[in-house]
Amino acid sequence: MSSLSPPPIPMELHAGNRKKLLESIRRQLSSSNRSLDGFVLLQGGEEKNRYCTDHTELFRQESYFAYLFGVREPDFYGAIDIGSGKSILFIPRLPDDYAVWLGEIKPLSHFKETYMVDMVFYVDEIIQVFNEQFKGSGKPLLYLLHGLNTDSSNFSKPASFEGIDKFETDLTTLHPILAECRVIKSSLELQLIQFANDISSEAHIEVMRKVTPGMKEYQMESMFLHHSYMYGGCRHCSYTCICATGDNSAVLHYGHAAAPNDRTFEDGDLALLDMGAEYHFYGSDITCSFPVNGKFTSDQSLIYNAVLDAHNSVISAMKPGVNWVDMHKLAEKIILESLKKGSILTGDVDDMMVQRLGAVFMPHGLGHFMGIDTHDTGGYPKGVERPKKPGLKSLRTARDLLEGMVITVEPGCYFIKALLFPAMANATTSKFFNRETIERFRNFGGVRIESDLVVTANGCKNMTNVPRETWEIEAVMAGGPWPPTK
Amino acid sequence: MSSLSPPPIPMELHAGNRKKLLESIRRQLSSSNRSLDGFVLLQGGEEKNRYCTDHTELFRQESYFAYLFGVREPDFYGAIDIGSGKSILFIPRLPDDYAVWLGEIKPLSHFKETYMVDMVFYVDEIIQVFNEQFKGSGKPLLYLLHGLNTDSSNFSKPASFEGIDKFETDLTTLHPILAECRVIKSSLELQLIQFANDISSEAHIEVMRKVTPGMKEYQMESMFLHHSYMYGGCRHCSYTCICATGDNSAVLHYGHAAAPNDRTFEDGDLALLDMGAEYHFYGSDITCSFPVNGKFTSDQSLIYNAVLDAHNSVISAMKPGVNWVDMHKLAEKIILESLKKGSILTGDVDDMMVQRLGAVFMPHGLGHFMGIDTHDTGGYPKGVERPKKPGLKSLRTARDLLEGMVITVEPGCYFIKALLFPAMANATTSKFFNRETIERFRNFGGVRIESDLVVTANGCKNMTNVPRETWEIEAVMAGGPWPPTK
Ligand SMILES: [Mn+2]
Ligand SMILES: [Mn+2]
Repeated sequence: MSSLSPPPIPMELHAGNRKKLLESIRRQLSSSNRSLDGFVLLQGGEEKNRYCTDHTELFRQESYFAYLFGVREPDFYGAIDIGSGKSILFIPRLPDDYAVWLGEIKPLSHFKETYMVDMVFYVDEIIQVFNEQFKGSGKPLLYLLHGLNTDSSNFSKPASFEGIDKFETDLTTLHPILAECRVIKSSLELQLIQFANDISSEAHIEVMRKVTPGMKEYQMESMFLHHSYMYGGCRHCSYTCICATGDNSAVLHYGHAAAPNDRTFEDGDLALLDMGAEYHFYGSDITCSFPVNGKFTSDQSLIYNAVLDAHNSVISAMKPGVNWVDMHKLAEKIILESLKKGSILTGDVDDMMVQRLGAVFMPHGLGHFMGIDTHDTGGYPKGVERPKKPGLKSLRTARDLLEGMVITVEPGCYFIKALLFPAMANATTSKFFNRETIERFRNFGGVRIESDLVVTANGCKNMTNVPRETWEIEAVMAGGPWPPTK
Repeated sequence: MSSLSPPPIPMELHAGNRKKLLESIRRQLSSSNRSLDGFVLLQGGEEKNRYCTDHTELFRQESYFAYLFGVREPDFYGAIDIGSGKSILFIPRLPDDYAVWLGEIKPLSHFKETYMVDMVFYVDEIIQVFNEQFKGSGKPLLYLLHGLNTDSSNFSKPASFEGIDKFETDLTTLHPILAECRVIKSSLELQLIQFANDISSEAHIEVMRKVTPGMKEYQMESMFLHHSYMYGGCRHCSYTCICATGDNSAVLHYGHAAAPNDRTFEDGDLALLDMGAEYHFYGSDITCSFPVNGKFTSDQSLIYNAVLDAHNSVISAMKPGVNWVDMHKLAEKIILESLKKGSILTGDVDDMMVQRLGAVFMPHGLGHFMGIDTHDTGGYPKGVERPKKPGLKSLRTARDLLEGMVITVEPGCYFIKALLFPAMANATTSKFFNRETIERFRNFGGVRIESDLVVTANGCKNMTNVPRETWEIEAVMAGGPWPPTK
């Protein structure tokens, strides 16, 4: 059961996104004395078959297109007339037998109303429409989306259609502007991200309550997916669920096809569940770590509280102006201090920081922007350099925080043999390790605690609502209510 | 709860598939006096990112590769030495930091054992291996997979790698032979298809029991997905769930992104649920139709029983040698007779058959081969022509049945405005329609009943086990057991 139900989807959200882009691109064009004539043009995603078969993959809209137009159907184009500010959707002209196989063929007016745009035409009218609407001189100018995704190192594919060679195209202006628009979330965007967080938080709790030793990892995935779809209407997740237990929790991106959440877990194991639902394109990204039998051991508490301390301290320190690399270092330092207190490490923590020992236990970044993409755009705009050192180089942004950014806080502490053993053998870092204690943690796996934060004017707000203290987790797993009653 | 659990996966199955291909290709090469030297080479599927992002789609192996090698990881190649019969897997050489992010880097021997092949090398050794293993004269000959998928009209993509130009390649021999191998299922293949049917049948029943008016269509999808993953370990479905209610059940491929199972259904609606889980690549394809309030009206019974009669009559008639087009016509005729009995149609049924009136109510084919693909290979091998007439042209095979074929039997009867109204207006077919009665069915939607059959020596066996008679469905929906106790 659930206390939630899917909220209505405000299409004004995307109108707002378009307005923001329009203002931003106009500002930039004006400041460089360029004409405001021309069109922003994006191509929506296309439905794909699996290999050579007629098996169609469930379509999910391309994220930039989703941001500007909110369109859930494949094969659209969308444009914004920079001069007039008018928005235009181009929809595919469907064959008559679509009505038999795939559903009602809806008129242009349907999409105009649904997506709150100014004009709708068919894709095959695209050349004519641009020619008619263009108010400038010469060939109409199209601003296309082309630029680097700094997480994947892939480039976005600019819109293309037959006859595009008849237009002037600009491949450089749009991408940095649009990527930056997505960084600061509007209140309507925050509402959807909040709902994705609400239903995902509830689903995590549902899983905690139902877990028992002897289950398979994928059964936790199945429970999560079911809860978020059944009660939240979330057909998609933000990413493939990571349901790692035991040693698997030291594999940061566990859960993919070659490591498919298929272990049977046992009494005494820790679970690390990184799962987030997506609602109308906007996602969530939440990790809970807990003992599958519902009771923390003292070793589990030690590592868990080291990570929780880092998580809470970062959240306490976050506010506009704070630099994200500093937050990463803060998390590292707290974890190292805890490991020293727990006799796993020995020596001077500042010295450990200089030697980048934190990256042995937390090789990933502290957190990343989140929105329509789990790893959302804008992490490294022009002028922000990616750090080079271990751990820090994994950061998906090195920016100063701004009000309205949504960013994950996800410190972790893992015993990853591929990192730990070399560091223990290394001449400069071997001195830090207490071999005897570490032996006890050899197959511990790891702990990650991840929440989604929105930066406010004076601090930040945690959008994720799950039990975090060890006693809270134990109480919920024992059947207690969440949130706890006073 | 469930009475089922995921069975062990017999990798001998794929060894058997390879042996079958080997015998078949050797036979063909010998009969045309060609040398038995050379290699069958397939390229496995690759993991894909979503558009420009680092969001990875959940990988599902390419079906021909899955058939021969059963490999669940991406980026492999697989070969069979036609002369020696030896099987070779080529695995990607993973970077060191794979161990940190994605999991243990397993040795070659792991894959040799897991997949029961004779040799395992790295992909970057492929040229060297073929040169060393080749026993013939001249350049080594590679038989690559290239051919038409008659359901999608797409061509399979032949294996490629840097340096393939150093080899002779044959693009025509392999495809028809391998497609045909997949048509007749081995007993190990049948076991997996049976399990996919068992868990999917149980999941359909679970949904029937939990449905109540006022739910959303996607909640039925969610319950189905959860049951088959939770208790059957089925992470993939054979196809996107079709959960159509009311008028939507007349949309044959409902459920996709532009028609995403999002209607709230009401008392009095029929549901048409076409959902099938996949287990270790082998699928199921099952449709149940039932009233969401648990009681058939007389109109619902009329159409439902027309379809059930067709379904049962076809199954009774199926055996080796029977032609599938004849079975389609048998189903059509029974449905038309029932519609006449129900005063929806009037006139001579044979005359209706000549006018292809059956295709107005059932525009799709009666059924299709099913296996690793939902619409499995081999429907139209050389020499088998696709029929041209309405309804019949939608058939995915026109072959005579053979023992070991797995084929769906899925008659349906739909009131599709885009077909019905033109047929009622048409000069030669308008006389058949009883306008008054049809008016009552204008928003009826449709009924489909779909089971998976394996052709046996003397008949066929139904692998699907769900309530089919109206009273059986009503009893199960009222909480009765399935199978019913005596
Ligand atoms: Mn994250
Ligand atoms: Mn089917």
